[in-house]
Parts: sequence; structure tokens; C-alpha cells
Amino acid sequence: MIIIRSIAELREHIKAQRVSNPDLQVGFVPTMGFLHEGHASLLQAARKQCGLVVMSIFVNPLQFGPNEDFESYPRDEARDREVAEEAGADVLFFPQVKEMYPAPTKTVVTVAGVTERLCGASRPGHFDGVATVVTKLFNIVQPDFAFFGLKDAQQVSVIEQMVLDLNMPVRIVPCPTLREADGLAKSSRNVYLSPEERQQATVLNQALQAAESLVKEAGDELTSADVKEALSKRIAEAPLAVIDYAEVLAYPSLEPVHKLTEAERIILALAVKFGKTRLIDNRIIPIHS
Amino acid sequence: MIIIRSIAELREHIKAQRVSNPDLQVGFVPTMGFLHEGHASLLQAARKQCGLVVMSIFVNPLQFGPNEDFESYPRDEARDREVAEEAGADVLFFPQVKEMYPAPTKTVVTVAGVTERLCGASRPGHFDGVATVVTKLFNIVQPDFAFFGLKDAQQVSVIEQMVLDLNMPVRIVPCPTLREADGLAKSSRNVYLSPEERQQATVLNQALQAAESLVKEAGDELTSADVKEALSKRIAEAPLAVIDYAEVLAYPSLEPVHKLTEAERIILALAVKFGKTRLIDNRIIPIHS
Repeated sequence: MIIIRSIAELREHIKAQRVSNPDLQVGFVPTMGFLHEGHASLLQAARKQCGLVVMSIFVNPLQFGPNEDFESYPRDEARDREVAEEAGADVLFFPQVKEMYPAPTKTVVTVAGVTERLCGASRPGHFDGVATVVTKLFNIVQPDFAFFGLKDAQQVSVIEQMVLDLNMPVRIVPCPTLREADGLAKSSRNVYLSPEERQQATVLNQALQAAESLVKEAGDELTSADVKEALSKRIAEAPLAVIDYAEVLAYPSLEPVHKLTEAERIILALAVKFGKTRLIDNRIIPIHS
Repeated sequence: MIIIRSIAELREHIKAQRVSNPDLQVGFVPTMGFLHEGHASLLQAARKQCGLVVMSIFVNPLQFGPNEDFESYPRDEARDREVAEEAGADVLFFPQVKEMYPAPTKTVVTVAGVTERLCGASRPGHFDGVATVVTKLFNIVQPDFAFFGLKDAQQVSVIEQMVLDLNMPVRIVPCPTLREADGLAKSSRNVYLSPEERQQATVLNQALQAAESLVKEAGDELTSADVKEALSKRIAEAPLAVIDYAEVLAYPSLEPVHKLTEAERIILALAVKFGKTRLIDNRIIPIHS
């Protein structure tokens, strides 16, 4: 695995690989680092499908709000190098902020519709920052395939909508959420949790599990309000949990539904705070009406 | 020259050309058709530099305001084919609106700063539409070079800013404005002019010419207000002319200047209406302070 910090050098390296192998497929895994098994699984998926696997690690200031955790977002370059190499990355792209934004960007990519609810409502401007940096990274790497984790299902919807609307020459591969033994979705932010918060954080997965069973048993009869209530009640059983949102929407449009049977698929989506730490998780469930 | 109407077919054609010639440079000339010698000169510039020259003709609804001339914008496919072939296009990409926008786009590319004045002020949303469709076309064609006419100098600034900010893998080549024998800048919209309007329309170039001489003689002493006044006075000599704007700004930032010597280059920019027809023209002048 080689580590590259400059855009020009990365372009040159990928171009040379493509010239020497015209059938090469380039796979790309964009991340914010502090890698865990979820990121590793994206690399493994890329490895299976692509001759050259590029991972980027860049904590993108543009997608953090003024009161969010950009400065304190966990970083560990040495460990990230090991995890990335172990999981099969060929190239680790590790740019500084001034390499990606030599001047403040005047250009922004905005995706309407899918960004209005869930994290888009809680974190204004967040998905503009995501769409803009992913566009930049796609233009730098020019991958054939890009791999994103479904833990942030809304991010996947945003990227897929953007790729479709802007005719970006890349295929998006959504990959399943990885979980700890007790069901907590793997996340770089889990390290923020105190032991007590960590224990109670399993409530997200448990609430989703219970609500999923409810939908599978009685989905034809239920409204989204019924399922939201079931989610909220279950979360409330954890005394340290503060709900940011507990939502039930059509997937992938992320439009509201009344009866669940109005959609072919629904997403149950949670954002829950434990102290300053905000965790997200979700389930995507097909509806057979 | 071949004519292609589908995105998939265009991608395939260009890919095949690139595979058979790995050193191929692809040149791209995006237009709205009703081609004149200005467009032909862009093709000729592309022809000199590139092994494959792709022209697109697409009247993009997204860049027209609700009261603008999208429906009546002049179209002449048969003539455009002749002009494009004659000037050296290899591929003419001629998509329908539903090929470019199978559903209304939820994704928009916005460029701040350079879009706030001139046509950006007169035509709200216009440059969002331009930036978005050019992004789509760049993603479809994936050119090495793209050629734009300097008659719309603000459009060139917007595209250059976007390419820089989003790390688009393409080089923008600005090309000089072509003029009729009497100095009127060539434009597809010139066909709208009545004979009397056509005669008076030469006032744009004349006013720019006079103001340019003024700047070259006394630029060190002048403010932008002085030059704006000279432009406006000269335009007012044409009884049918109604000024939309007559501006003097720093180039390429398009920021206001007081003394001309505050900028390394300035742009004198005009938009003038004759009846329903809105014409633009400009001069870009280096300032030696």
C-alpha cells in the first residue's frame, strides 16, 4: 500500500495504472478515517470487484456545522494505515485541508428532496458538504465503483441521487452496516461514549429490531406514526438516551408515508444522543402489500 | 461526422476511441445550437488541439428564467449539422430534453461570487442552470479540453471557478469573440433583430471600443464610475437601446473596483435590450499601474 498526500500525485499514479492495464477497474472508498471493521468491509468489497482499490481519509470541514465535532473528530493516522493495508487498500489518499481547499470553495453541490429530513434537518448544510467533497473526490480519483456504508443510509440516497442527476461516470455500491457483538452499529464516534453510555447505546439496535418485527408481523395495518411511537418508547427505556429523530419514511426517496403500504420499501431511522455523542442507525425493510 | 442522441451511445463511442488510441485528447464544445462563425471558431480551436472533437447542441431549459426565450430560442438542426461538419466536429451530440433530464433534477451546482453581478443579477438562477448542465455534459463526455467563447466572459469565469473548486479533470480554453464586419458580436440571438435594431446594435461594440480607448489613455486616473458613465452615454445615442447593465469590474473575480488600478485586469461588460432581444458584449483589458 502506498500513501499519497497530493492530488496531482494521486492522479498520476492512477493514470499510470490505467495506462498499463486498460481493463483496470478502480474501486474507491471515501472515509473520514479512524477506521473500524465497517470501513474494512468496504475495502474488502472493493477488493473483490476491482484491480485497484483507493481509500481516502479526509475529515471534511465543509460537512460539519459550527457547533459540531470537526476539531475533536477522532483521528489516528498510524492505526488507519494498518487497518487500510490489512483490509486490502492499494492506495491511501491522505490530503491536508489546504490540499482539498486551497481557497474557500465558491462552488457547492446541493441535492434537494432526499436531504430535507433526518440528518439533513438536524444538521443544516451537512449534505451540501458531503455532496461537494464527494464530487471533488470522484473528480480526483475517477473511480469505476465507489463503496458506501448503509449505516448512513441517507448519505447513500444523496450520493445515488447526485450521481444520477449529474450523470457521474461511477457506480455506487451500498454495503451493509457492521455491528458489535451486542448489536451496536460500528462507528468512529463510539469511542466518545462513557462505559455507561456504551452499554445503553445498544438501545438503538434493539428498538430497530423490535420495530422491524412489528412491521413484519403487522405492516399492512400500521401507519408510520405507530412505528415511530414504538421506536420512541423503546429508546426512552434507556435513561441517558435523548432522541434527535425517530423516523419512518419511504426509501430511497425519504418522503413521508402514512400507511406503510404506500411504499415498496421503508426506512426506520434513528439519531440518538448520549451526552455530546450523536449516534445513528437504521433498518431498510421491503413492504409486501 | 456522426450524430448521436443517446448518452449511453455517446459514452460508448468515446470509450471505443480512447481504447483504440490511448494518447487521444478529447476536445468538447458545448453549445445551444443555431451555430454561427463564433461556434465554428471554437470547433477549429478544438480541432487544432485534439484528436476527437465532440460538439453538443442542447437548449438547456434549466438556464432559462420563466419569462425568458426557452421556447422561442432559435433552432435549425439541418443547418447546424452542416456548420458543425464543415468546422471539423467528429461527433455531434444532440440529446432531447428527456434524455438529459429524464426526471426533474434534484441536484444543482451553484457557484457563488462570480455569479452575483452582470447576467447573474439580471437572470436569477441562470448560472446554476449553466453550471449544472455543464457538469452533466463534462461527466458524459469526459473531455480533456473544453472550449468556451469569451463573448459570455462571465460564463467562462463561472466554469473556470467550478472546475477549480470541484477538481474537474478538464482544461478550459477561452476563445475570442467573433464579430460581424460592422463589429456586432456574433450571436444566435442576432436573428431576432429587426433591420433597424440590427443597425443600432453596433452601438455595443462602439461603446466598448470608445471606453477601451479611454482606459488605455487615462486608466491611471479613472474610476469605474467614469468608465460606466462613458459606456452608458454612448449606448444612449442609439434610440432603440435599453441598458440592462453597463458594468466595469475586476476580471476574472467580477468584484467591484473603485480606481481601475485596483485590478490587474478589468472587464467592461454590457447587456443591452433591443425590443425583446437582449445582447451582451464585453472587453477584457489589462491594467498596468
